[in-house]
Amino acid sequence: MRMVDIIEKKKHGEELTKEEIHQVIAGFVSGDVPEYQMSAFMMVIYFKGMTPHEIANLTLEMIHSGDTLDLGKIEGIKVDKHSTGGVGDKTSLAVGPMVAACGVPVAKMSGRGLGHTGGTLDKLESIPGLAISVSEDQFVNQVNTIKLAIVGQTKELDPADKKMYALRDVTGTVDSIPLIASSIMSKKIAAGADAILLDVKYGDGAFMKNVDDARVLAKTMIEIGKHLGRDTRATISNMNQPLGNAIGNSLEVIEAINTLNGQGPEDFTELCFEEGETMLLMAKAAKTREEAHAMLKDAIDSKRALRTFKEMVEAQGGDGSYVEHPEKFPRARFVTEIDSPETGYVKNLEALNLGLVSMKLGGGRRKVDDAIDHQVGLVLHKKVGDPVHEGDSLASVYSNVPLSDALKQDVLDAYAFSKEPVEKPKLIEETLG
Amino acid sequence: MRMVDIIEKKKHGEELTKEEIHQVIAGFVSGDVPEYQMSAFMMVIYFKGMTPHEIANLTLEMIHSGDTLDLGKIEGIKVDKHSTGGVGDKTSLAVGPMVAACGVPVAKMSGRGLGHTGGTLDKLESIPGLAISVSEDQFVNQVNTIKLAIVGQTKELDPADKKMYALRDVTGTVDSIPLIASSIMSKKIAAGADAILLDVKYGDGAFMKNVDDARVLAKTMIEIGKHLGRDTRATISNMNQPLGNAIGNSLEVIEAINTLNGQGPEDFTELCFEEGETMLLMAKAAKTREEAHAMLKDAIDSKRALRTFKEMVEAQGGDGSYVEHPEKFPRARFVTEIDSPETGYVKNLEALNLGLVSMKLGGGRRKVDDAIDHQVGLVLHKKVGDPVHEGDSLASVYSNVPLSDALKQDVLDAYAFSKEPVEKPKLIEETLG
Repeated sequence: MRMVDIIEKKKHGEELTKEEIHQVIAGFVSGDVPEYQMSAFMMVIYFKGMTPHEIANLTLEMIHSGDTLDLGKIEGIKVDKHSTGGVGDKTSLAVGPMVAACGVPVAKMSGRGLGHTGGTLDKLESIPGLAISVSEDQFVNQVNTIKLAIVGQTKELDPADKKMYALRDVTGTVDSIPLIASSIMSKKIAAGADAILLDVKYGDGAFMKNVDDARVLAKTMIEIGKHLGRDTRATISNMNQPLGNAIGNSLEVIEAINTLNGQGPEDFTELCFEEGETMLLMAKAAKTREEAHAMLKDAIDSKRALRTFKEMVEAQGGDGSYVEHPEKFPRARFVTEIDSPETGYVKNLEALNLGLVSMKLGGGRRKVDDAIDHQVGLVLHKKVGDPVHEGDSLASVYSNVPLSDALKQDVLDAYAFSKEPVEKPKLIEETLG
Repeated sequence: MRMVDIIEKKKHGEELTKEEIHQVIAGFVSGDVPEYQMSAFMMVIYFKGMTPHEIANLTLEMIHSGDTLDLGKIEGIKVDKHSTGGVGDKTSLAVGPMVAACGVPVAKMSGRGLGHTGGTLDKLESIPGLAISVSEDQFVNQVNTIKLAIVGQTKELDPADKKMYALRDVTGTVDSIPLIASSIMSKKIAAGADAILLDVKYGDGAFMKNVDDARVLAKTMIEIGKHLGRDTRATISNMNQPLGNAIGNSLEVIEAINTLNGQGPEDFTELCFEEGETMLLMAKAAKTREEAHAMLKDAIDSKRALRTFKEMVEAQGGDGSYVEHPEKFPRARFVTEIDSPETGYVKNLEALNLGLVSMKLGGGRRKVDDAIDHQVGLVLHKKVGDPVHEGDSLASVYSNVPLSDALKQDVLDAYAFSKEPVEKPKLIEETLG
């Protein structure tokens, strides 16, 4: 069928066959389907949606557009974890070691950050010497030996996704649930996951602005998992304020290490346990959430989780002493306290704007090839629901040039106050699947 | 604003400003807006539609994308006529001379045919020597002298439309009312029309398949005319069966000449009068439809209309004797009668399939650069509502190779019969504006 006829068919609400979806994706990757047809096709998907069968077939075609990773040489059920992204989201750095320390293999391929959201690889690279680019053999061996590896892609996985995303970004077709869901799921499956835990965030600092959209996206991905035989579950979590207290690369690594020492912020620790428990259940390493919780708590209390993280750092060429002595991380030249202008309670805290402050300080990228300053960022001292007195420090801002008045104001503007007590927002909505 | 933001704005249902529409169209013509963004934008228009203001601004931008014709040197109100296309539609060839013979200038730029629809220029070129490519000065002088010229474009009018249409054709965005309406109206206004009469056809052989869609398209174009200060009216007419009896280039010219002699088919003559009357009213050459009708009838009865056509043919280098002696047109080598297999009444006659038979005989183009055989085509002897006896000829097929069984069957299949009497279908629905 001609590409224009496939576009028309979808436009008129008919379900596309597996063969038609193959023709579109394989054709787009090979160049036979030009960008102007692909962008029209993706705009049709934005308006008409896709059936579960179509989304599953789209995901399969994207997986098969490039190399796939065979993790068969790693023993056990490989559970991958993916977050839809937010501000201060260093979950993989803590959950990975916690789960691995319970004997479950964590073979994770991560990405870099863009805009207001950070990337796990960028954060890891604040540890001197640590390499995120390793061979597939090394990756597999490392997971078999110490149960944990967090690296960049070893092969050209899912080139369809890269090409589609670049086009979506400039044609107004980013915010389409079928396209988002297939993009995430195809990457995870191409990277060899047996089971997938998704952290679907909603709110000001997340891609999905409300909990209903997050739930639809989560359910769509769980459905893909069902079609393609991958146990898939999803935690829906609040990203209206940043996760934990630290925003910025080395600052977030330090917070992850504190958490592995049992001294992490309450909200972040709660999410790490929720996700870790689900991963242990999916890996069949625990029978109940309570049993999983106890296993994870023991991994922290015994310092096994911290040791596992140190072993991973060293296996990837990094300096493990930073894990034991996080005070070794070089501090930014300037630390500016942002004082509260009011007495009362923190009513609101805008994750998106704080993420942008960190980016503007040099901690994130505007464009994919921007360099990153690992030292800069923010540590929040007051979050939503906290009582505050005028003059208290709301946050410390770490910068390598004196903090500009504009950025200082941005941080202040991200806070809103109330005279009346404010309830702490619920972090975890539910875990589906 | 970035193009992607304009796409998003329209996607979320906001009205685009004149400046934003300028940026899109000027950018697309200059190459600053790539095809992949333009196709996504046009798909958004397909789904979201456009407000009357947006459509008017889009039309204006398209007009200003290239040269425009100034017909100020032609005296009187220049009324242009445009048909959305059908099978056997030779109306311009008869109405043009009829209106011109009433003293109203007809300065017409026409197009070529594609697929199952013929083009006025292709039909005219069956007259030996006739040139459709003339200079602007010659065009203006000819209209001032003999009131009539039907030619191809003298300048690069409306390049935005050409570029947009080529892209729409391969991206599933042809059937969008705002895009169709702005395409037609921008071309007519760029060609210098003071007033525009549209023949919006609906049915099997037309682009609009039902009368409701045709009415929406007609009203959209009339609304554009209002915004841009051009008196615009529209006749809605039935294209479920071919117009008149002849399909094919020289066959249709002969039928137009017969009509100018007062001996045309009833339905075709009816449409010529309806359109001619409206044009005389628009040109303020008549005060009432009755007065206009009498003027047109006199133009035919006195042979002034026929003479005007002959003068035009000769002014454009053609052999005028063909107008006086249409029997001079060379006949195709084979004429095959298609005999009726039944006795009863013609219930249905598929215009689209008969148009395709004519194209397959060589009378039309599959691709824009195909050559055309001016001699081939069909002359229908039985149309919907006509009584028929088994063995009567339904149609004569003119071909330059022996008629294949497949094409013969195609013609037969285009006919459906009934034992009960069938009412003749209404040709003209209404004239709006």
